[in-house]
This record gives sequence, C-alpha cells and structure tokens, in this order.
Amino acid sequence: MSPEFLLITHQIAPQAGQSEQVILGIGDDAALLPHNDQYEQVVAMDTLVAGRHFLHEQAAFDVGWKSLAVNLSDLASMGSVPQFALLSLSLPPDLERKAWVTGFMQGWQALADTTGIVLVGGDTTSSPVLSITVTVIGKRPAASRRMLRQSACMGDDLWVSGSIGSAGLALTLQTAGQHIPDSLAQALHRPIPRLALGQALLPWVNAAMDISDGLLADLSHLLRASGDLGATLDWHSIPMQADVRDWAEKVPYLPLTSGDDYELLFTAPVCMRDQIQTCAVASNTPVTRIGQITAQQPIQVMKDAEAIPLPSQLGFDHFTSHKHHKILA
Amino acid sequence: MSPEFLLITHQIAPQAGQSEQVILGIGDDAALLPHNDQYEQVVAMDTLVAGRHFLHEQAAFDVGWKSLAVNLSDLASMGSVPQFALLSLSLPPDLERKAWVTGFMQGWQALADTTGIVLVGGDTTSSPVLSITVTVIGKRPAASRRMLRQSACMGDDLWVSGSIGSAGLALTLQTAGQHIPDSLAQALHRPIPRLALGQALLPWVNAAMDISDGLLADLSHLLRASGDLGATLDWHSIPMQADVRDWAEKVPYLPLTSGDDYELLFTAPVCMRDQIQTCAVASNTPVTRIGQITAQQPIQVMKDAEAIPLPSQLGFDHFTSHKHHKILA
Repeated sequence: MSPEFLLITHQIAPQAGQSEQVILGIGDDAALLPHNDQYEQVVAMDTLVAGRHFLHEQAAFDVGWKSLAVNLSDLASMGSVPQFALLSLSLPPDLERKAWVTGFMQGWQALADTTGIVLVGGDTTSSPVLSITVTVIGKRPAASRRMLRQSACMGDDLWVSGSIGSAGLALTLQTAGQHIPDSLAQALHRPIPRLALGQALLPWVNAAMDISDGLLADLSHLLRASGDLGATLDWHSIPMQADVRDWAEKVPYLPLTSGDDYELLFTAPVCMRDQIQTCAVASNTPVTRIGQITAQQPIQVMKDAEAIPLPSQLGFDHFTSHKHHKILA
Repeated sequence: MSPEFLLITHQIAPQAGQSEQVILGIGDDAALLPHNDQYEQVVAMDTLVAGRHFLHEQAAFDVGWKSLAVNLSDLASMGSVPQFALLSLSLPPDLERKAWVTGFMQGWQALADTTGIVLVGGDTTSSPVLSITVTVIGKRPAASRRMLRQSACMGDDLWVSGSIGSAGLALTLQTAGQHIPDSLAQALHRPIPRLALGQALLPWVNAAMDISDGLLADLSHLLRASGDLGATLDWHSIPMQADVRDWAEKVPYLPLTSGDDYELLFTAPVCMRDQIQTCAVASNTPVTRIGQITAQQPIQVMKDAEAIPLPSQLGFDHFTSHKHHKILA
C-alpha cells in the first residue's frame, strides 16, 4: 500500500476502514478482516504498470511471477497463509496477446504452485498501457500475535531476511545494458515471497513489513507507524551480495534506498534472538540482525563508527515519482 | 468477468479455481469461497479504463460512483451483502490529482454510504492512463440457494430489473454532443446496483447475472453456461424508457446490444411469479418478465409476431473490441 494511498483515503474518506467489522483497515501491508473462529482474513492489492514497475521488454514469465510475488510478499509480512487470488490484466492492442498471456500465466502459476494460492476470478480489458492488478486473500490464526507496522518497541532488535540491494543493482545493470549475474537477476525478476518465514515469526516479533520501496524508506514507514521511533543500523551487518557491496563502495546508501527487495523487515525483543534463529532454520530463510530501535528519530546508519550521509528522500514512491527507480523513463 | 478472462485462465491454468477450498471459481460474476458456518464469501474484481469504460472528460464524482457500482452489481447478481472493498488507482501525471481524487472519492463514498461497504485497502500508482481496479468482498447465507449463471432451466420465465438501453442511449447522445435527459444520464454515470433485489430473490430464482455487456450478450452467456439453452423474448415487454423506445424504432435491437445497463437478468420457475413480484415491492425495484427459456439455441426476440433481425455480435466485449460502445475512440 502506497503512502499516497493512505493519505488520500484518510483525507477524503476518514471513516475508511474504521468499521467495527474491520480488524485492521488501511495503513499496513494488508487489511485484517474477521473470518471465523480459527482464522482472521488477510487481504492485499497491488498494481504493476509497464515502464514503471517493470521494463516494457521484460519477459512475460517474469512479469507473471512478479505480479503474484509482490502481493504474496504483503501476505508474508502479516504471517499469513495464501489462499485465493484475483487478477486483472489490462493489455495493449499491439501486444501479441496469446503468447504474452501464456508466458505471463506460466510465470504466475510457477509461483502459485509453490504456495497453494488459487486463482478464483478477475478481469481482462484492453488498455493503451500494460498493467496488472492483483488481489490476494490469505488467513492467519486468530489467536496469534499480529505482526503490524505499528507495534515496534524501543530497544527492539531490527532484522531483515535475505539480502538487500540485489534487485536495485540488477535494475541498474539491466538499464545500462550490462550483464546481470543470475543471483541478482532472480532478485529483480523472480523475488521469493518470505511466506514460511513470516508464518514462523508470528509468535515472536513485535512489528513487521515487507521491503518494497527500499530498506530505509520502509523502515521510516514502520518507525512512523510505531509512534515516531528511531533506529540505528550497522552498515556492515546489513546483508548484501558481494556485487552489491562493491556497488555501494562509493555511495554506501545506494542498496538501502533501491527498491524491490521484497524481503521482510521486522523488530523483536532482544530476548527472542534464539527463537528467531530457529524460525530462520525452520523456514530455510536467512535472517540477519542489522540494528536497534531507538526512542527517537532519525534513522542512523553507522559505518566504521561514523553515520553515513543519507539522501533527503529515502526511497522510491511509485506514485509521486515519475521516475521509478530513477532510471526508468 | 470478461469471457476472454475465462478463456485465458481455463486454457493456461486449467486448475484455476478448481481447488477443494473453492465453492465457485472463475466463470461467474463473482467467486464463492468458504467463510464460516453461516455465510459464504463472495468476491469480484473489475477494471475501468479511461476512454474505454468512461469518457476522459467524465466528472471524477461519476467515475468514483461507477467504479464501485459496477463491482457492487456483481455482488448483487449473487444475492450478496457488500462488506469490504479494495481500490487501486492508476493516475496519469497530468491529472490535477488532488482535485480529481477528491471528486472520485466523494462519488465512491456517496454510493458506499448507501450500501455499508467499507474501503479497507488498495494502491495508488502513476500511469500514463487513468485506470481503476476494484475488488469487492461480500457475504451470502450459506444455507440459501445460489444464483448462478449456470442454473437456468428450460421453461423458466426470464426477468430483468429496471429498464434496458438507457445507458446506451445516453452514451450515444453524449458522444454526439447532444443534451442527455437526467434519467438517461443517471443510468450511464450513476447506475444503482440492485443489491436489495438480489438479496430478496435468493430463495426464488434459478439463474441470475448482471447485465454489463448488453442484454442479449449477457443472456447468451447465461444460456451457454446453463448447457446451451435458448430463449424467446417479447420485444414489447422489455422495459425501456420512452426515449429509448423511440431510439429503437428503426433498429429494434439497439437497446438490447448496448452496454452498461447494470440491471439484473434472472430466470425463475413459472410458479414463482408472485414471490418475485413480492421481492420487487420489498426492494422497491421494478422487475419485468420479458420472455421464456427454451430448450435450444438461438435467442429469438419477437416483435409483432416476427423475430427481429439480430447482429452477429450481440454486445460489447471490453477486451476484444477496440471500440468500446463503438463510439469511443
């Protein structure tokens, strides 16, 4: 959910999501709705537009995979189990429709098969611009803690899954027409939603969200939602592939402000370190402790005992920026 | 749900919607999902693209109203009670965003307030083309009959709510730059989803769907879904505003093949006529009996004891036609 969406809906429809029927409305990665005695329902919706969220020339398979992946990432950050999806495809007339859609659905299904999510409906329409909107529906145990953006506590450890900045470097290389190592390409084109990790973490963490706009931008959203807390990060602890660390040599914040990581960012009490490592092993997903939640803003990233300079805009906003990832027209 | 979507998903992902968890998957106005002991969940998703589903110059208020209305119409045709909505707005950079979005949300909320639906999430993104995708979630009593497209029976009465062709004539007039009478403009810009009627009809009807692509096109979808049945309609019985009947004088099928009616089309056993009239009164929604379901194709529309000629394409397909409503570029 984009920050702009939050703004719009709260300004214009202040009652949005405030109904008694709603457990959690607008403002997090997904909404929580009442379901039955055992489960709460988790719903999220994300749109991808060609030339903005992916390159026009991107393989249809990758677009299908990623359209589902970014939505599943929202379910992962709420610790939920995916169940159902709806898909709206807006296709330009010049597209080789059948071949493109076949490739798209193969990519979608390849990821769907690993997660058990079932496509139950949607829409297709002709449009001048290729665009995909997906709604995903999942469930989470009603009795368990809720991993929200708003529940970070001062003193919490700050954790991330996987590694940071790989998709950002891949996009930089792709746009420059340079070779992209496989491990980077996979991060950009076929991110793996951290579903098993999210589900395992439910009992132990205080706050969680997925990283889509860049580590620092999304961390700032989490800190603001938790009552304007701050954070201190250790640059050397932030997990990065070797290529990414090289990329960051001159501008250390680059990987922390590039988008499309689709990793989980979460906070947990210090006493939960063992449990979280157990979750990582059980879900076969690396996690790394990268810093600490502090009582007050700002975010500081320490490198060799000095705070690195940070840009005024910490990440990408797919809405307000006309230049997604800077390098897309 | 567009016929093309059905085709795509069944070709490419034949298992789509076939999970044991799904009560009814792809192929109707909405999907039915298990919820709890009392209710089934009903979910639908529709996309509207500027220049295709509404004119570029259309008032933002109307676009907001209609974006929600066409989705609620899908819930109405399943006899369900609206609960939650998700909204994705793709906005072009040149749009006066704040003013436009304010108008849009006012139109949305005006309709939402009358139906109790709550906005719980969504997305905003920048895009070259103004486009809106909405997902609606509702519920229906688990114990009641299901109003599906596939359950029409030979000999059933064929019914419609409201009147037919008003939106089609309004669009024709608007595009020609002519004055549009208020009652026609309302049908085009602020259709009223037939929620109360749909809920009341649940125990009595065999099959139902909403009319979005034109009466004859959607009737043909219903007949095909019900095992290639046919229908005989009485042209004079089909409810039309006086202006629409005048419009149809030379080409009687015009109102039956223009889109955007958003009325309910349903079939019921002959012995249910009294109950259906009672539903109409209780929901304050006019209904009219317009014909009969027959054992075999085709659809015949009788006027003065002769079948009127019908075009080979019975209505609009927002996907395959590049000319939505013919008169949009």
